[in-house]
Amino acid sequence: MSRERYAVGIDFGTESGRAMLVALEDGSELGTTTYRYRNGVIDERLPPPNDDVDLEPGWALQDPEDYVRTLRQTVPELLAETGIDPGDVVGVGIDFTACTMLPTLADGTPLCVVDELRSVPHAWVKLWKHHAAQPEADRINAVAAQRGEPWPARYGGRYSSEWFFSKALQILDEAPEVYARADRLLEAADWVVWQLTGRETRNSCTAGYKAIWSKRDGFPEDAFFAALDPRFEHVVDEKMSRRIVPIGSCAGVLSEQAAAWTGLRAGTAVAVANVDAHVSAPAATVTEPGTMVIIMGTSNCHVLLGDRERAVEGMCGVVEDGVVPGLFGFEAGQSGVGDIFAWFVENCAPSRDGAGHAELEREAQKLRPGESGLLALDWWNGNRSVLVDTDLRGLLVGMTLATTAPEMYRALIEATAFGTRVIVEAFERAGVPVERIVACGGLPDRNRLLMQIYADVMDREIAVASSSQTPALGSAMFGAVAAGAERGGYDSIVDASRHMAHLRPDTYRATAAHREAYDRLYAEYVRLHDLFGRGGDDVMRTLKRIQLEA
Amino acid sequence: MSRERYAVGIDFGTESGRAMLVALEDGSELGTTTYRYRNGVIDERLPPPNDDVDLEPGWALQDPEDYVRTLRQTVPELLAETGIDPGDVVGVGIDFTACTMLPTLADGTPLCVVDELRSVPHAWVKLWKHHAAQPEADRINAVAAQRGEPWPARYGGRYSSEWFFSKALQILDEAPEVYARADRLLEAADWVVWQLTGRETRNSCTAGYKAIWSKRDGFPEDAFFAALDPRFEHVVDEKMSRRIVPIGSCAGVLSEQAAAWTGLRAGTAVAVANVDAHVSAPAATVTEPGTMVIIMGTSNCHVLLGDRERAVEGMCGVVEDGVVPGLFGFEAGQSGVGDIFAWFVENCAPSRDGAGHAELEREAQKLRPGESGLLALDWWNGNRSVLVDTDLRGLLVGMTLATTAPEMYRALIEATAFGTRVIVEAFERAGVPVERIVACGGLPDRNRLLMQIYADVMDREIAVASSSQTPALGSAMFGAVAAGAERGGYDSIVDASRHMAHLRPDTYRATAAHREAYDRLYAEYVRLHDLFGRGGDDVMRTLKRIQLEA
Repeated sequence: MSRERYAVGIDFGTESGRAMLVALEDGSELGTTTYRYRNGVIDERLPPPNDDVDLEPGWALQDPEDYVRTLRQTVPELLAETGIDPGDVVGVGIDFTACTMLPTLADGTPLCVVDELRSVPHAWVKLWKHHAAQPEADRINAVAAQRGEPWPARYGGRYSSEWFFSKALQILDEAPEVYARADRLLEAADWVVWQLTGRETRNSCTAGYKAIWSKRDGFPEDAFFAALDPRFEHVVDEKMSRRIVPIGSCAGVLSEQAAAWTGLRAGTAVAVANVDAHVSAPAATVTEPGTMVIIMGTSNCHVLLGDRERAVEGMCGVVEDGVVPGLFGFEAGQSGVGDIFAWFVENCAPSRDGAGHAELEREAQKLRPGESGLLALDWWNGNRSVLVDTDLRGLLVGMTLATTAPEMYRALIEATAFGTRVIVEAFERAGVPVERIVACGGLPDRNRLLMQIYADVMDREIAVASSSQTPALGSAMFGAVAAGAERGGYDSIVDASRHMAHLRPDTYRATAAHREAYDRLYAEYVRLHDLFGRGGDDVMRTLKRIQLEA
Repeated sequence: MSRERYAVGIDFGTESGRAMLVALEDGSELGTTTYRYRNGVIDERLPPPNDDVDLEPGWALQDPEDYVRTLRQTVPELLAETGIDPGDVVGVGIDFTACTMLPTLADGTPLCVVDELRSVPHAWVKLWKHHAAQPEADRINAVAAQRGEPWPARYGGRYSSEWFFSKALQILDEAPEVYARADRLLEAADWVVWQLTGRETRNSCTAGYKAIWSKRDGFPEDAFFAALDPRFEHVVDEKMSRRIVPIGSCAGVLSEQAAAWTGLRAGTAVAVANVDAHVSAPAATVTEPGTMVIIMGTSNCHVLLGDRERAVEGMCGVVEDGVVPGLFGFEAGQSGVGDIFAWFVENCAPSRDGAGHAELEREAQKLRPGESGLLALDWWNGNRSVLVDTDLRGLLVGMTLATTAPEMYRALIEATAFGTRVIVEAFERAGVPVERIVACGGLPDRNRLLMQIYADVMDREIAVASSSQTPALGSAMFGAVAAGAERGGYDSIVDASRHMAHLRPDTYRATAAHREAYDRLYAEYVRLHDLFGRGGDDVMRTLKRIQLEA
């Protein structure tokens, strides 16, 4: 029997980073270590000593030093815990939230570590859920429409405030001095790979889904950027790069410094960076069309493969080779899911803390569909698909004096399931079939009621990935592919998936008796969705305007 | 100085009954005693030993024996506590919730104390908030429209499920054997006066506001009742009475039995029964047009005087001599107010119990109008004015992941204030001016923030009645009028009010800086109110239908 080989996958999340050691032969997970970011999500004020700098509503930043601390803490711990020989680790892969981007100097030094810029919010990392660049997104969409740009069709017709050029343009608009100092503007994912390998390498996944790049057309032409702002004309050549490297490639090898940080061997293969959601698809066994992967956590992300490009209403993006080489990867998303349930427990069932979710789930479980008389629109964090509007807000209707907290909790779960169904139906309407669903992420582990409601609302069987850490597993798989079969890894992500990814034997099947009630509730959901989301009634945006002026 | 004289007012509420001893000279309140009904609100199952009889959703009953227990407990306690000579009590008045009605035998024995009927829900008292007679109300409205009945204009165009003939017809529909056994159908208010005096006396206030009686036209003609159901044709002559006695009259004197129950002297004057809201107007100093009295508690009731009859959209009723003899008394209402805040504390801020309201109020106080971005429709208990629809439900819109419990609490308060403004504007549009507002009831005492928000939203100064027990005070005042000046009382309620009713020196004045934000929020409230309340979007009724079938 040959010597066992391993790969390390590192998943950079919203609140923490996590490293996992995976056996290449069968994908078994030998250990996992986590680092909780010291500065977490920075959304009220900058970290000390700049905590006199308040942030506006909608801002969400991160500290890039938290990423380095993740590398320095999780990987050595992982090696120590598992006791394996670093020489048996053939590759490293990482995945990240996206678009999470930052401005740096030419050598990769983040602007926020430059003394005189440390107190300037725009010098920090803008986290995916930074929502303050809506005016810039609106401008991008308006200019694109006016110029008849071809690319919006690849993004469901609307470019999001969460994405790369909205955030970059906000820096230019609000802090031109920071923009001027930025030699590079890049995804945090690529920045970490730069730290690992000593070389800037930009991945095709974030470039495609977040920065309007495509394999066939490259970036939009300079005239488009100039139309947004004359100073923005050469943003790609001045601060980015036209050299985009496909996922599944090797970005380079571990530098001496990164080896010292991590305890791995210098020279270990490092994969091109990837995105947490997209890297989860092969880790959930999905490398072919017809199966939607739903990564369920604080938010939901939907990944689906297709053999040709299609325009799907409100999808986040379609990118050739964006998920699995040779196929078109479609992405959609729901901005708030687990976040909403956590909000409810924290704000509306506070005595139940700790046991909160479990207690609410137990009571909510006893209800029949429709029994509560409640219906919600799940827009506590805006709507990412199919409406693509961060100004949208949550709505709950149907309360009486007899309404209970578990009833409201269940209505929130149902609303997110209805939101998923809207997305599934948009794909099917556009000719991208959704025959099966595979779920992964944190929620399927914790909330059986939620999974059953999703199966019932969707009227589809839902399988669940074996791994409860598909991003880290998928990153390790890409690490194995970066190494290649020759060095004990795999030559393609399809091969790696076949050996290393698995599903749980149990699945969630739709309850026939619930179908009619959920179809009726869903019809009401769709009506309210269109009324409040498509401009029939503008109350949510009006309330936001009044709020901003209050 | 002449000997001090007194009156006793007894207020029969939803959960308890309360007696008050009042000095006739200046209205000073010498003592108050309360009896908490043993069987409270019966809304899930009948009391033991019939607690195997479950009630349908929407039902709300009371036990008439709780009313007698109130008389037997509160009045003797009151006399003992204050130590006054029963001979110095010149009159007794009572007020009641309405329409709260029951079926009895010819001698006044409630059907629910008849052995073989004790387990039959329809034999019990139907409390004002019994909402299960909506189909009957719908039928009454349809038949009235079809026949072109003149009276709906006096009730804002719609007859409520809470009122007398809806409830009576529900008995006939669902329990014809109970209907057949009922020799009398009457308001619980009149039933209690019957117990006090030994004589059935029906008051003009409940007859006018709840039972389609008017001083000029009497009841609708028999053909109308026959059109509802042939068996209902002679309901007035068979089970009611056409002898309606104006409020402010003397119903009779205390019987020997009632004297033994209460410890008062047999022969003491007893006023014709009244309704808690209406009796509050003179107790809040209001005996003339132009001032709206708002009785603020679990629900809000609005009473306004006018010198001529007007049709006001969705008002609960206009009755000549209904509040103060010689004037038209207009009534409107909001079905849920304090109830909604209590619901929120109980279900969404449960750890805060006891201190719940105070803590939420303290935090909510710090918010500026519009700052939360939230807006609610205050229909947790349906809408009584101006939409008159118990099928309507609550709605809350604008939630984000940053929304807090105090923000939601404030949004609920604001929603009830907007609901009041809708009513005030409906009166003004119909030509019934609302120049001043006087508040009374339990809420003004407990919630200063709420009062300030009402003043701001209405852009009017709000005075508050001195008495925190205006119904009991008003009942005592009517007791004094029943006795008359000759026996140490007063000859009219205007006289009684001038001497016995007072306002607090402090008032709530509108905050100029809040006006614009509240005008904007109110405009949104009105739009959603019309959208969901006037048939533009039927989601609330659809959810109720789905719920009933679940």
